[in-house]
Amino acid sequence: MDERRSRADRARQIADLLRGEIMHGRFRTGRLPLESALAREYGTSRNTVRQALDLLREEGLIDRCPRVGTTVAAEKYPHGLHRLLGLAETLHEHGEVTNKVRTMGLIEPPPAVGHRLGLPPGEPVVYLERLRSLNGLPLSLDLTYLVRDVGEPLFDADLERNDVFVLLEEIAGRPLGTAELTLEAVNADAHTAAVLDVPRGAALLMVERLTHLSDGRPVDLEFIRFRGDRLTMRGHLRRDSEEEHPCP
Amino acid sequence: MDERRSRADRARQIADLLRGEIMHGRFRTGRLPLESALAREYGTSRNTVRQALDLLREEGLIDRCPRVGTTVAAEKYPHGLHRLLGLAETLHEHGEVTNKVRTMGLIEPPPAVGHRLGLPPGEPVVYLERLRSLNGLPLSLDLTYLVRDVGEPLFDADLERNDVFVLLEEIAGRPLGTAELTLEAVNADAHTAAVLDVPRGAALLMVERLTHLSDGRPVDLEFIRFRGDRLTMRGHLRRDSEEEHPCP
Repeated sequence: MDERRSRADRARQIADLLRGEIMHGRFRTGRLPLESALAREYGTSRNTVRQALDLLREEGLIDRCPRVGTTVAAEKYPHGLHRLLGLAETLHEHGEVTNKVRTMGLIEPPPAVGHRLGLPPGEPVVYLERLRSLNGLPLSLDLTYLVRDVGEPLFDADLERNDVFVLLEEIAGRPLGTAELTLEAVNADAHTAAVLDVPRGAALLMVERLTHLSDGRPVDLEFIRFRGDRLTMRGHLRRDSEEEHPCP
Repeated sequence: MDERRSRADRARQIADLLRGEIMHGRFRTGRLPLESALAREYGTSRNTVRQALDLLREEGLIDRCPRVGTTVAAEKYPHGLHRLLGLAETLHEHGEVTNKVRTMGLIEPPPAVGHRLGLPPGEPVVYLERLRSLNGLPLSLDLTYLVRDVGEPLFDADLERNDVFVLLEEIAGRPLGTAELTLEAVNADAHTAAVLDVPRGAALLMVERLTHLSDGRPVDLEFIRFRGDRLTMRGHLRRDSEEEHPCP
């Protein structure tokens, strides 16, 4: 590596590579090599390695203790981005998703909601707010608006242990089709931070998602805040788009 | 809206809807309605609207000034997530992307890089670090590792004004194929914050992306930090995945 660059630049470069290795499961034992071994491996100084590890500690990805060394602090779970999936569906290999319903009710939605869901003015929708956890640890806060005919039967469903997606398909008697989604990184405000049990300002992965049934009808508008230290989105892209080469 | 819930919960709910409306271009004039009008529209109190607007101001999305009112502070640009695209390609409607090359050179990569790029140990790669801007404002910091045969010709290319993707296709004489990507939300460390001109701790959208040529060979491994206040990722997902119903 180029030693003429600032140490901060070199530390960031090494932190990114280590972050990738942690996420791709290189350190199955949960323990990272010694600083001296990492310095040799990355062709840099111990000081630069130490600074790289400091960056990853600030992100909450690793812990560093005298005598114990450097250990992986928290697993980051991959949410599939290759297919429209509910949280329990996409994380089923990683443990149990449970949902705490914070509020649920029939509301007259603001025009912004009715418009996105294709509803006439004044048509009520079901509003649902859930704190979702994996293996008991908070993972996301989900705000959900559902059209009335598929949303109302959810009042009698087991929302604690089921994805809304799976329940919607049962209720509608047809599969979901497509969803449009927008992904952002935002800082947690004080109240959201308290709900998700993160420091104020922690980076969150924010998802706005409008989901349609297979017949094209929009039924489910969601605003999801994932803890940035617990979740990644993983998928693949193609250079030749589906739009340009549609499947028959 | 349910007035029995805490004001913070209601404010978050309204902030999300307003954020969506800002991103979807409702306020083309750059000016938001008065608090009283928003309170009527969202069926809530002025105090709750004020708290929702405070959340969006903290995110840097709006400005609030006495007498002037509430205005959209910064445009967020949508990066296409439906197709593998370079930055200038995906943002061409929004302005000019320019790139400042911070460093570029042939390096012996750490094993983590060589392994991802499918290279034998000791095989050099081209390392490229760029600060990318849209209309002169910093948008992302990109750390890029390229296999030597397609990377070395970039030393003579105009990297200031071109996407690497487009240049790679010219050099390789074939299109890119697919890319695997991982998306995360992270807080900016002090040095990265200075480079991207954001406050320390600002939420960044972090992308790790491994891109292959159309023949399947991995050629380009990137670590990209997008400013969370400037960029969103926008795409769509299908419930029936391509994997399960492959196109012939």
